Amino acid sequence: MIVSALATSVGINLGLTVLLCALYSVLRKQRGNLEVYAPRLVADGRARQPSQFNIENLLPSTGWVRRAWDPSEDDLLGASGLDGVVFMRIFIFSLRVFSVAAVVGIFILLPVNYLGISCATLTSPISRTNRWICSPFQMLWFHFSAAYLITAIVCYLLYSEYKYLSSKRIAHFIASKPLPHHFAILVRGIPLRDGSSIGDTVESFFMEYHPSTYLCHTVVHQTSKLRRLITDSENLYRRLTHLKSSPRTPENHRNGGILGLFAKKKDLLGRYEKKLEDLEENVRVEQSDISVTKEEIPAAFVCFKSRYGAATALKIQQSDNPIEWVTEEAPEPNDVYWPFFSTSFMQRWISKLVVFVASIFLIIVFLLVAAFVQGLTYLEQLETWLPFLKDILKITVVSQIITGYLPSLILHVLSSYVPPIMKLFSTMQGYIATSQIEKSACDKMLWFVIWSIFFANVLTGSATSLLQIILDPKEIPVRLAVVVPAQASFFIAYVVTSWTSLSSELTRTMALICNLIGKHCSCKSDEDDEFQIPSISYHSEIPRILLFGLLGLTYFILAPLILPFILVFFCIGYIIYRNQLFNVYSPKYDTGGRFWPIVHNTTIFSLILMHLVAIGIFGLKKLPLASSLVLPLPVLTLLFNEYCRKRFLPIFEAYSAETLIKKDRADQNDPTMGEFFDKLVTAYRDPIWMPIRHSPYSNEHNSPLLHSS
Amino acid sequence: MIVSALATSVGINLGLTVLLCALYSVLRKQRGNLEVYAPRLVADGRARQPSQFNIENLLPSTGWVRRAWDPSEDDLLGASGLDGVVFMRIFIFSLRVFSVAAVVGIFILLPVNYLGISCATLTSPISRTNRWICSPFQMLWFHFSAAYLITAIVCYLLYSEYKYLSSKRIAHFIASKPLPHHFAILVRGIPLRDGSSIGDTVESFFMEYHPSTYLCHTVVHQTSKLRRLITDSENLYRRLTHLKSSPRTPENHRNGGILGLFAKKKDLLGRYEKKLEDLEENVRVEQSDISVTKEEIPAAFVCFKSRYGAATALKIQQSDNPIEWVTEEAPEPNDVYWPFFSTSFMQRWISKLVVFVASIFLIIVFLLVAAFVQGLTYLEQLETWLPFLKDILKITVVSQIITGYLPSLILHVLSSYVPPIMKLFSTMQGYIATSQIEKSACDKMLWFVIWSIFFANVLTGSATSLLQIILDPKEIPVRLAVVVPAQASFFIAYVVTSWTSLSSELTRTMALICNLIGKHCSCKSDEDDEFQIPSISYHSEIPRILLFGLLGLTYFILAPLILPFILVFFCIGYIIYRNQLFNVYSPKYDTGGRFWPIVHNTTIFSLILMHLVAIGIFGLKKLPLASSLVLPLPVLTLLFNEYCRKRFLPIFEAYSAETLIKKDRADQNDPTMGEFFDKLVTAYRDPIWMPIRHSPYSNEHNSPLLHSS
Repeated sequence: MIVSALATSVGINLGLTVLLCALYSVLRKQRGNLEVYAPRLVADGRARQPSQFNIENLLPSTGWVRRAWDPSEDDLLGASGLDGVVFMRIFIFSLRVFSVAAVVGIFILLPVNYLGISCATLTSPISRTNRWICSPFQMLWFHFSAAYLITAIVCYLLYSEYKYLSSKRIAHFIASKPLPHHFAILVRGIPLRDGSSIGDTVESFFMEYHPSTYLCHTVVHQTSKLRRLITDSENLYRRLTHLKSSPRTPENHRNGGILGLFAKKKDLLGRYEKKLEDLEENVRVEQSDISVTKEEIPAAFVCFKSRYGAATALKIQQSDNPIEWVTEEAPEPNDVYWPFFSTSFMQRWISKLVVFVASIFLIIVFLLVAAFVQGLTYLEQLETWLPFLKDILKITVVSQIITGYLPSLILHVLSSYVPPIMKLFSTMQGYIATSQIEKSACDKMLWFVIWSIFFANVLTGSATSLLQIILDPKEIPVRLAVVVPAQASFFIAYVVTSWTSLSSELTRTMALICNLIGKHCSCKSDEDDEFQIPSISYHSEIPRILLFGLLGLTYFILAPLILPFILVFFCIGYIIYRNQLFNVYSPKYDTGGRFWPIVHNTTIFSLILMHLVAIGIFGLKKLPLASSLVLPLPVLTLLFNEYCRKRFLPIFEAYSAETLIKKDRADQNDPTMGEFFDKLVTAYRDPIWMPIRHSPYSNEHNSPLLHSS
Repeated sequence: MIVSALATSVGINLGLTVLLCALYSVLRKQRGNLEVYAPRLVADGRARQPSQFNIENLLPSTGWVRRAWDPSEDDLLGASGLDGVVFMRIFIFSLRVFSVAAVVGIFILLPVNYLGISCATLTSPISRTNRWICSPFQMLWFHFSAAYLITAIVCYLLYSEYKYLSSKRIAHFIASKPLPHHFAILVRGIPLRDGSSIGDTVESFFMEYHPSTYLCHTVVHQTSKLRRLITDSENLYRRLTHLKSSPRTPENHRNGGILGLFAKKKDLLGRYEKKLEDLEENVRVEQSDISVTKEEIPAAFVCFKSRYGAATALKIQQSDNPIEWVTEEAPEPNDVYWPFFSTSFMQRWISKLVVFVASIFLIIVFLLVAAFVQGLTYLEQLETWLPFLKDILKITVVSQIITGYLPSLILHVLSSYVPPIMKLFSTMQGYIATSQIEKSACDKMLWFVIWSIFFANVLTGSATSLLQIILDPKEIPVRLAVVVPAQASFFIAYVVTSWTSLSSELTRTMALICNLIGKHCSCKSDEDDEFQIPSISYHSEIPRILLFGLLGLTYFILAPLILPFILVFFCIGYIIYRNQLFNVYSPKYDTGGRFWPIVHNTTIFSLILMHLVAIGIFGLKKLPLASSLVLPLPVLTLLFNEYCRKRFLPIFEAYSAETLIKKDRADQNDPTMGEFFDKLVTAYRDPIWMPIRHSPYSNEHNSPLLHSS
């Protein structure tokens, strides 16, 4: 790719970004779009619908930027929980790192690189006069110092972020009101004893060994059949609503309608209503039936009278047989992923293996796709593949768009399909909570992003060279030093393209289209349909953001030109995501900031990768002294990581006795605790047991439907 | 090495073994040797000193074999604790494995190998007639089936041993009387608060957060100065005793004695006594001084009122800062390694790194030595190195001894110096208990044994080929298949030599010599000196025994001839170690069988190594189908290991709530518990604080000495 192609790409994307932001500021002010652009405000009743037509509403404005910028971190904590704060801290951390990196890169490394290149092309007499500046060997010491400097800065910032978020996490816990999952644990592998039910076994076990703290338990039931029935009735209900809605807009059908067709529809309607009635009856029978015959699963949520009691039961192995009475942290009641409990142990075991293989397979498939896309940057190759395009490709603009813009666009679009697949994989792995599923999907996505986007492009998609690198570990730094710089221009283009995809997050095109269709077509659910606030999918966003950190650090020494573009990315991202967190997304669960360790580890990985590249570069440039002097850097970084693991990670895994006991004591004087414990007894009931008219699996509209039928 | 050399080696070692056993049976019956051969019986007062001279006492007998064979496992448990039982289970397990392996190896694999070789040398007409038997490709299927068979058997036996020892461990705990370390934990990283001592901080922290279970604490003190003083006084005391003992045997000195020398000696005696008195005064001052000025270390043993209370405090992170109030299992009071507490954090951190490097260095040095020793098996090489030996080496017996016996003897002798070094390394690493030090030394020894003895000899000491193997992981199986069989004869000789070293364990040559010198030379400590019962060093014995398991499994397919020799080794070892555990060694500590997971893991490692060799062999013999069909074997073995880790390992790490609470409840009705808790208060006092006359660091004879001075 040539410089002009890069300029084209920057131009297009900057234009698109500004356009999308302007479009957003206009669209947001439009009547009816508030539900798309500020669902949280609508739900809270804080949104003001523009009352009348105003010319100002059609002009782009920047007020939303100020409104996104203004609120404090405490406001963010209140609005999006600690996970939201952690998410925004990624941007703050990255902005700090890359501000320094960009200054060092642009004002020191870039001139040095440039001088180095000019030196190489200069004639010998001149180079002899200013030998010091022009010796490429001497110059590399700038890069060497820069590597040490940036490592020190990143580690310092990592440390202070970890410390800050640790204290935030503890403060958040102390400030929280009593929550069911602090008092509960999940017990699995309950041994079956003849003559007594699971419930009785749990009761007697915990009454025996935790008599002073045990409160109650909720046994989990086998619900796959019931779940199937409810899904069926839900589908049928939806079809029925669709059918029913047609006569309500008579102009649609009277125009082309025949009486026979109308009669047939009525007939169908009756049949469906009958079927639905049967199904719902079945559901009710099944609900009452199971609770009698007790198709229990050897798993139960056990609640305790104190947080410390729950923590004790969680941490100490309960039974002499370590695979019986296995304890696990209980997720929040609305975070529990109920369908999981219906799968058998063998199913989970097999699906774990299948998921492992499938994830690798997905990465490999994507690697091949990426290899093809990378081929697009070489026009000649494209011409060989698709000869009929030869004439079109001769137009400069087209060829520049194709080489500069198209490959990264394709990658962006394709990779947007991966997060749902990875989440599906994680769902199959047998996690008991949505948050755990998303955390696991986040890990998978990270691997995917690093391999399929970074390494795949770095290695230009040749599977053999990848294999060679793995099988010849000694050569890794040198090979990286050869292949990584070769793709610098592609990744600059990739970063630039990402500006647009960030801004499209702002305009929420898909949601907007759905909203428009919903409004103008009555086949969408009823007007009184409950208003759904979307939640942010951390498992797709966090890896995407971390990739840019990885790119920035890896290319810091090799191609400092990428740094300002990355800095711009994080600036745009900071504003846009703050805006979205305050206006659009509401938190679905609260992990208490458990995504941060993932961010920390990935940054450490990026640093090590940078060191490897530096070692390789110095080795290639015949500067073995510098190459060996960089060696302590990865070792020190890993030692630092080890210290952080000891110092901070336990805080993100469990709360300390100190905190738990303090909190428990504070509760003792709280008069509302009795009420809370009463609620705790039913907190972990599978919502599928609720009467169908209140079940989230079939909308609330079942009951009016049944009444009317 | 030729077959006759092997025969020589077997002959020599069998002879030596029988000789040593006979010698033992005779020596044991001698008056005065009882303290060497049955110190435990002497200590228990169960030993009968042979009253008068009897010709029978000079004849070898086999009565000791029966006496070692007879006792049940419960007797062993009583005599040597669970660690002794685990140690003997290694022999039982190995005997079972290698009985089956030897039968399969000798009666199936060996004939098949032999036929295979004869086939290769047979002429074609004959081989055509019995093609099935003679096709070497077909024959390998025997080896293939044998690999599956032996893996299944080993895994089954590993599972049942783990299960058996797990239940033994729990039963042992339940049957135990109240022990201080079940009620105590060690707390480190106690934060220093201005104005209050460590003791007060600990007291207030545990009174605050564990008011119902906290009992008492013992702060650890900085004792390096005191320890130095006591060592000095001890040394001085020893020199003094030595001087004093001279006049007691006047015939020694009167013969060559001059009056002036005598006077000088008296003068010296007086000076030494004065100095000793000063030193002891210093010790007393120091002892009282520190307890006033409180040179406390931020570590304390905290005792609880119940085992469950201690376990709870141990398992739950106490403070919000995970590097403060770090809890650790408390070792038995007499197992605590007190000097450790005097080292600073930085010292420990540095010594950890130093130990790591030093261990690797030791292994490499030994690798080089082993390479030289291996060279001895090739006479020509020896002749080149030491040309003056040429004539001697021409004598058949000499050359056979050198090639068949000398190399493994040198290895045996040299490797006997390694365990103390490894133990020293582990001591420097900062473990707080002798048992932990020995367990860590056991791990180090295993690495050492596997690398320096197995791999070093297998790779014939060429460091480059080792590096090549590591850097080219794909080729590992094939390379192993080439290099492992080449050393089969050496390892057969090594196994055979080990018979002798086993038997020398029986005769305890060093202890016998010391005893003889001590008796006939009064410079040894006084007659009333307390009788010391030795303890077995598991960290040197277990790796040595496991090496033979590794050899047996690795050579099972390649050279089944080794199996009967290994079987004999385990038979001899079983009887000898039983004898020693009952008569000689008394347990120094009780880890509750925690050495077994090491045995389990090493056996799994041996299995995987066997699979790799099998894959390589089948690959070499152009049988890719068999080679790929072996592939599931290591995977299945690792899955089995994973299951065992889940199912059994936690039992060896901690006791379950169930067991702890049951045991606590049983104690509630025990009237002696009050007394036990009283003792618990002082159980974890550093013995260095005891008045010097009772301190183990200076013998009990200080006080009479001081009285006499």
